[in-house]
Amino acid sequence: MKSRIYRVIFEADTRAGKLFDVALLVAIVISTAFVCLETIPGFRKDNVVLLKTGEWILTGLFTIEYVLRLYCSPRRKTYAFSFFGVVDFISIMPAYLALFAWPSSYYLVTIRLLRLLRVFRILKLLELSGQAQFILRALRESMPKIGIFFFALIILVFLEGTLMYLVEAGVNPGFNSIPNSVYWAIVTMTTVGYGDVAPMTAIGKLIASAIMLSGYAIIAVPTGIVTAHLSRADRSGDSTILPRRECENCGLSGHTEEARFCRRCGDKLPHV
Amino acid sequence: MKSRIYRVIFEADTRAGKLFDVALLVAIVISTAFVCLETIPGFRKDNVVLLKTGEWILTGLFTIEYVLRLYCSPRRKTYAFSFFGVVDFISIMPAYLALFAWPSSYYLVTIRLLRLLRVFRILKLLELSGQAQFILRALRESMPKIGIFFFALIILVFLEGTLMYLVEAGVNPGFNSIPNSVYWAIVTMTTVGYGDVAPMTAIGKLIASAIMLSGYAIIAVPTGIVTAHLSRADRSGDSTILPRRECENCGLSGHTEEARFCRRCGDKLPHV
Amino acid sequence: MKSRIYRVIFEADTRAGKLFDVALLVAIVISTAFVCLETIPGFRKDNVVLLKTGEWILTGLFTIEYVLRLYCSPRRKTYAFSFFGVVDFISIMPAYLALFAWPSSYYLVTIRLLRLLRVFRILKLLELSGQAQFILRALRESMPKIGIFFFALIILVFLEGTLMYLVEAGVNPGFNSIPNSVYWAIVTMTTVGYGDVAPMTAIGKLIASAIMLSGYAIIAVPTGIVTAHLSRADRSGDSTILPRRECENCGLSGHTEEARFCRRCGDKLPHV
Amino acid sequence: MKSRIYRVIFEADTRAGKLFDVALLVAIVISTAFVCLETIPGFRKDNVVLLKTGEWILTGLFTIEYVLRLYCSPRRKTYAFSFFGVVDFISIMPAYLALFAWPSSYYLVTIRLLRLLRVFRILKLLELSGQAQFILRALRESMPKIGIFFFALIILVFLEGTLMYLVEAGVNPGFNSIPNSVYWAIVTMTTVGYGDVAPMTAIGKLIASAIMLSGYAIIAVPTGIVTAHLSRADRSGDSTILPRRECENCGLSGHTEEARFCRRCGDKLPHV
Repeated sequence: MKSRIYRVIFEADTRAGKLFDVALLVAIVISTAFVCLETIPGFRKDNVVLLKTGEWILTGLFTIEYVLRLYCSPRRKTYAFSFFGVVDFISIMPAYLALFAWPSSYYLVTIRLLRLLRVFRILKLLELSGQAQFILRALRESMPKIGIFFFALIILVFLEGTLMYLVEAGVNPGFNSIPNSVYWAIVTMTTVGYGDVAPMTAIGKLIASAIMLSGYAIIAVPTGIVTAHLSRADRSGDSTILPRRECENCGLSGHTEEARFCRRCGDKLPHV
Repeated sequence: MKSRIYRVIFEADTRAGKLFDVALLVAIVISTAFVCLETIPGFRKDNVVLLKTGEWILTGLFTIEYVLRLYCSPRRKTYAFSFFGVVDFISIMPAYLALFAWPSSYYLVTIRLLRLLRVFRILKLLELSGQAQFILRALRESMPKIGIFFFALIILVFLEGTLMYLVEAGVNPGFNSIPNSVYWAIVTMTTVGYGDVAPMTAIGKLIASAIMLSGYAIIAVPTGIVTAHLSRADRSGDSTILPRRECENCGLSGHTEEARFCRRCGDKLPHV
Repeated sequence: MKSRIYRVIFEADTRAGKLFDVALLVAIVISTAFVCLETIPGFRKDNVVLLKTGEWILTGLFTIEYVLRLYCSPRRKTYAFSFFGVVDFISIMPAYLALFAWPSSYYLVTIRLLRLLRVFRILKLLELSGQAQFILRALRESMPKIGIFFFALIILVFLEGTLMYLVEAGVNPGFNSIPNSVYWAIVTMTTVGYGDVAPMTAIGKLIASAIMLSGYAIIAVPTGIVTAHLSRADRSGDSTILPRRECENCGLSGHTEEARFCRRCGDKLPHV
Repeated sequence: MKSRIYRVIFEADTRAGKLFDVALLVAIVISTAFVCLETIPGFRKDNVVLLKTGEWILTGLFTIEYVLRLYCSPRRKTYAFSFFGVVDFISIMPAYLALFAWPSSYYLVTIRLLRLLRVFRILKLLELSGQAQFILRALRESMPKIGIFFFALIILVFLEGTLMYLVEAGVNPGFNSIPNSVYWAIVTMTTVGYGDVAPMTAIGKLIASAIMLSGYAIIAVPTGIVTAHLSRADRSGDSTILPRRECENCGLSGHTEEARFCRRCGDKLPHV
């Protein structure tokens, strides 16, 4: 019994398991839609009963699901502290928290959307999850470089923010404190540029121009890092070319790791 | 007779065919210009007769052209449901729909512009369409990766939107509902940054700063994916891998154009 | 006499020639600064005599220089219709045009700045102009691809603009005509995002979100194209690796074009 | 005694040295936080004593530290004029300057943040500083290209600014002078797009659209340059070119790490 529930809830290789996963994804999307609609003042007033009923039914179902997951999991602790175990838990908590303590915490149930990442389990069957692994690996590999980049960037935006504060503070209410000036520097360097804060004095505009132009080169760094890693990951797919591997018969090089015969003369290649 | 019309309308290798294509492109551009001008209130009032007459003459010509295409096409059904067949049809429909039902649908005739893509038929003679194929192939290849990226991104903007809603909702009318907050998150993550919605509280600005900085790294991902694919397509010049070329003995694919023997089983490969 | 003037004005390999070039660059920068300052209302009123005098002295000098260039050039026609010949001419014209016809055309003398590109003649001596050639070559090579990209992009922004016009026109004065909506689409797709026009209706925001997210992938295309060309140009510097060139003694491959001896065994390499 | 202080202050390989470094980093962060908080009007009023006391204690400590650094450094002059020596000095100066001359200069103590870059000395032990070197090398290598790019870009934004000034000046207060128009052009080309200045006339919007679309391709250039350099640095893994390794016979440089013989003269290379 327990292992049958397990196969349906945790796996996606049976018909029932796939159906359960799809139903879960639909329930998550509907539940998020309900929460979003509830925050629209005009919509809420007219549909408060419908929304509240729907939300509590869904929260109930998700609670039952979580309890079942805990019940049928062979290694309860491993599941409970795994990424999805934690996400499953904090996806139902806000609803109960809202009931007993802080009402607006209810909206945090959108954290449920993280559970949509489970969809990759279904995608695995569609051979799409390899692509996701690919991006994740490139991102993970580029993390140390990007971390160092952000460290230097944060120092830079503080210096730029201080400079602009000294120049604009008296005239421009948007630069009334260093934190606000740093906020402006971040908005500018990331090229978001809301325009809620913008330089007003001539010197301020001059410095801002220099900052924007420098930001032009700086924004290239993370892009360059990620691209370099993605390119490399791309190059070294399952067909890595080993440059030193040469055919002993004709001397042709540029064979892939999995190649066993020379593609020019057909001779057997030496083992790697 | 039918086949002579076909050569003029569908092909671009005769003088008449080229002339027809150029005339068509000019007509499409003029027709779009007319529609654009009509929506400018000041211009419309003074030129309503000219604009209306011009538009209906062009719509009439396009209708005749479409009927001729249907008439002279040897495989009518294949044409009618091909990409350009459908575009040709929905390019004239809005005009008639506007006459009988929904007047403002008339402006949808700008969909006619899609017919400009036919210009690539002329470009083929200029050997430019290879470049277009090149970009399209790289985009098509990177689609699965970009699809997964967008899937994760949409989850992210919902979580960010909810967070900002909780922080800003009471103070900032721009964050008055979760959908509006998600809209803000998308405007921010894509670095568009209209500024119609912007954080106002200190905590909101702090969270927004973190979101913008993270967006700095995230915007690098699609750029990296497309660049990697374009670079690869670019690199695989004289050693292009022909994906359809398979070893007749063991079925292995992924052989380069210059390969003469299968790299796995050593069997002779079929000629290209 | 004529050829001595030629060496000073047109070349930069003598001391006098270098001095002349530097003086010219300084004069261009000063002249541009004068024009800029003149347009600042507060500054103009107080310094009108100084500015006007300075500008006319500089224009006079530039006119004398242009006449001298024409006089001493051995092939007058070739110079007059070369890139710099045309720039030199249209750099003095606006000043005279302003005198006799359209006063505000005077400000077009900033076109003089294009003459600063002459600085590359001095840079040549500093071996920096190779880098400029490098960027220019990559840009020129990627032009056909980028041209096709822009062609497709312009069709896209027209369709997006029409769609937003239909949705927002009645409510939002920023979308009061199709050209304005297309302007918004361009501001959005390029991620500039002024915010002078922004969607207001719920459906408009939804469509805008989709447009922004698609723009996320589309902005990657020109970056990818230029990067791929720059990477390729970078790879094939003056030290192109010829993959098929192998040492006849030890079989090592991966030698550059200029290499004459094997870097592993020191044996003479075969000629290319 | 002197050398023991030196080991603690300048190095990070002893326990005391590491502790000192960590304490220093914490002190810098706290001191910056104090300065930021002081500029927030509401916060300052209520905590002026606390903030002022804290700041002066920290400034005192930093002064003592600087004196100790000077005292224990074996080559005082080398330290005093090194990057960190200068940063250490100008990190304490603003505080004393504020006391005696220009009060608002005090905020410049945020320059202290540059001292955080010392953290890389600790990171060295964590093998992270190699990544930083990697990014710095790629940036330094791409500097000449990016410099030329900015030179051309600045000419371009001046021409664009002049053009927009001629078109918009009378109607649009944002374009009331050429410098302001150039500021707009920079805000637009870098895709920051505050929206504090935006075109209003039809022709202005048309030109702005062309500028934005051209900026689409131009922003790709620095990204492409940095990416190409990062990719190359990434690629040249086990065959890193050691720029300082020169053939003792013919003087050719640019040998890879694994090379044992000069590729031009065939002479044996010195060991790495």
